[in-house]
Order: sequence, then structure tokens, then C-alpha cells
Amino acid sequence: MKIDVIPYASAIRPDLIDNRYVVVIDVLRASSVMVTALANGANAFIPVSTVDEARQKAVMYHEEEILLCGERDTKTIDGFHLGNSPQAYTQDKVAGKTLIFTTSNGTRALNRLKEAAEVFIGSFLNMEALVNRFLRLDNVVLVCSGTNNNFSMDDAMCAAFFMDEIMKKKAVMLSDLSITLLKAFQKERGDLHLLLKDCYHLNLLKRNGFGDDVDYCLQKSISNIVPEMKNGRIIRG
Amino acid sequence: MKIDVIPYASAIRPDLIDNRYVVVIDVLRASSVMVTALANGANAFIPVSTVDEARQKAVMYHEEEILLCGERDTKTIDGFHLGNSPQAYTQDKVAGKTLIFTTSNGTRALNRLKEAAEVFIGSFLNMEALVNRFLRLDNVVLVCSGTNNNFSMDDAMCAAFFMDEIMKKKAVMLSDLSITLLKAFQKERGDLHLLLKDCYHLNLLKRNGFGDDVDYCLQKSISNIVPEMKNGRIIRG
Repeated sequence: MKIDVIPYASAIRPDLIDNRYVVVIDVLRASSVMVTALANGANAFIPVSTVDEARQKAVMYHEEEILLCGERDTKTIDGFHLGNSPQAYTQDKVAGKTLIFTTSNGTRALNRLKEAAEVFIGSFLNMEALVNRFLRLDNVVLVCSGTNNNFSMDDAMCAAFFMDEIMKKKAVMLSDLSITLLKAFQKERGDLHLLLKDCYHLNLLKRNGFGDDVDYCLQKSISNIVPEMKNGRIIRG
Repeated sequence: MKIDVIPYASAIRPDLIDNRYVVVIDVLRASSVMVTALANGANAFIPVSTVDEARQKAVMYHEEEILLCGERDTKTIDGFHLGNSPQAYTQDKVAGKTLIFTTSNGTRALNRLKEAAEVFIGSFLNMEALVNRFLRLDNVVLVCSGTNNNFSMDDAMCAAFFMDEIMKKKAVMLSDLSITLLKAFQKERGDLHLLLKDCYHLNLLKRNGFGDDVDYCLQKSISNIVPEMKNGRIIRG
């Protein structure tokens, strides 16, 4: 299988994803939130780009059907039910709900993928399940969401983890960026905290009091959920 | 010093380079050509984006003052004096000449850098001299030219070589992409042919008969020339 990587959301171009199987990765924390909430019984995520769009979308539903979720500058948005901390998406809060979701980086990437054949959500949490989903698919593009339109190591090293795992199971053709990320990943693959210790976004979250979220999101393959995008909604695949 | 990396030419944005010291890297082969030709007595390079622009520029000079140089699809352009093989830029050919130069990737990057404080040319060939030039400069952006608007390992690993060397001499602050490239570089830093064995562009050149150029361009620090851009011309700094 051919594996390409897009290094951050603003580098998405239609020709890079046209008719290909896309994995969107936003480790800290949108991907990890989606995996966790869908595991805990959430119906679906509706990713939107702006806070206003989220509020406008909410009025189309009965109040008890939905939750407004997301962050700006790492923090919960005023008046929203939930922020971007995956462990807050507990079963008692999210089961049966549709989650209208806006984040600084992850949902921006999701709304630029109309040309893709299918779109999946990747994180460290669900990697084994994601890799198994791709055993019979070819032609994958790993889209790293990045941080503020720039390359972010957490997402890039998660893309490398995908490659490292799938190469154990099938033959791959790697692009130059894929090879480079894999080389960067391999020496410290056994200790993600060490590998990512200088990652800007990870350290920003720690400084803002979200160290527990970081610890949670860097766990490998603890969930068998592979979220998929269907008709603009992210559902349990 | 702060070190950022731009992964390929089309990712250059004015806000990323504004008032910063920029190093343009196109290892295979434009940077290596410039270092070599300026060492062999060429007056200057005038980088242009298109073949037509090169021919139009040429008519502004006496015929004996200039050479038309460059490549498309790795090969010498019809009617041009020289292609993109650095070792063809010998003293007897280039001394005293102004070289009008157009390549697929490198000159494209050069023409997008108007906001930079200063622009230098980097390659494996002139790395030690380049690093020494930056001992008293801060705030550097390494621009990898890339190949066909995509990330190219040869340029990225040369950017990593810059970081690896300058870190021996001064304290640095690295971006996420800088850290990642450095991690990818370090294990095989002693054998560039091994490090780059799966690089797409390198293998394309080998297939097209330019294996000698590849061997030449992967030599470390054999030249003390640091080309600089002044008023749209690349000169010996």
C-alpha cells in the first residue's frame, strides 16, 4: 500500500487526497476525544469550524439531543457543555447524544476532505484497530492536523506509529515525508513521553493544567473504536 | 537562536520569513551548483522561474557575459549552455560569467523570499562555512526547496545537518519540525547514502544517469563559499 503524509491541515490540497483513504490525526486532543466519546455511547460528532456555526447548528436540534463541545486556546468555550478533555466525555454525559464539536485544529482539517474516498479518525488510543481496518485498504493519506497551521510532533509521531505497525502486516510504499517521520519515531517508539518531551503543543497543554489529558492521549491501542466520517458526521465505524 | 524549517517551497508564507535570516536548501542540485560555480569564479546567478524568462533576461546582456543554465525534468534545457550538474560548472566555463538560472524547484523557492532579512544558500558541500556564518546571527529559517511542491528528504536532512552542527556551537530553540528532522537524521548522520537511500528525488537522478552528481552533492563541507542573495542576484558572500 502507498502511504503519504500531509504535515498540517493547511497543506491539504484536493489533488493529494482525491479518491484516497484518509486518516485524520489530532492526538492532542480532538481525535482522542472522538474515540473516547464514541466508545462511551455518543451517537455522532458534527465537526464545525467556528463557534458561531456550532451555536447555529445547535438550534436545529432538541436541547436534550445535543451537547456543544470544543475548545479555543486549549480551553472550554463559554457556554459549551464540554471542552476538549477526552476523559470528561463519560458515558453518563455523552451516551445517546449528538456532539457539535469545534476545535482549533482538528475540525479545521475535517472540513477540507470532501474529495477523499473515506475518512477515518486516528489516535494513539485506537491504533491497533485502525491498522486492522486498513489491512484490506490501499492508498492511504495520513493527515496530521498540526497546531495553528504548523507541523506538530504529536500528530506526526502518531502517523509514524501507524506506519510502523502496518509495516509488520503488509508491504508499504512510503513517501519521503513518511520515511523521515518513521526514522524520527523508531528510536524512542517505546517511550512516547520521551519522544514528545519537546513538543510545543504537548507542553502548552501541560502548562494550562491538562497534563492528565496528555497522559491519557499517549496510551497506545486501548480502544477498538475506528471513527469514520459519513455525510459530514463522525460515527462509530 | 531560534530555528524553524519550512518543509517545501509552496509552504513559504510571508509571516514565516518576515525579517528573518533564511537559508535556501536544494541539495539535488541547485544549491550545490551555486556553491560550486561561485567557487570556480562565476560572477553571479540570476534565478528566474521560467525558461521564457531566462531567454528574455539573456537578451539584456552581451552574449559573452552570460550563460543560460538550468534544468527541467532533471535534464538540460534545449539551447542552454549548462544543465544542473554541479561538476560541469568548471572554472574554464563559468569564471567571470553571469549565470541565468532556472530549475524546477530551487529557483521557485528563491523568488518567494522578498520579506526575508537576508537569504543564503545551503548545501552539504558548504555546511561548515554556512554554520560559521550564523554564529553571530539569530532567528534562522531553513527553507527546504522540495521536489514538485512536496517534501524531499535530501533537503530536509541537509536542514537537519545544519542544526546538528550549529548545536555544537551555540544554544538553539527548535520548532517541532526541526526536532523531528533532527531525530530522523541522527542515527545515520555518518552515512548520507544510507540515510537517503529511499529518497525519491535522489533515485530519480540516479535512474536518469546522474549518479555522479548525487555522489558529489552528498560530500560534507568541502567548500567555504556561502552564496548570498543581493538585489535578486546570488553572489559569493
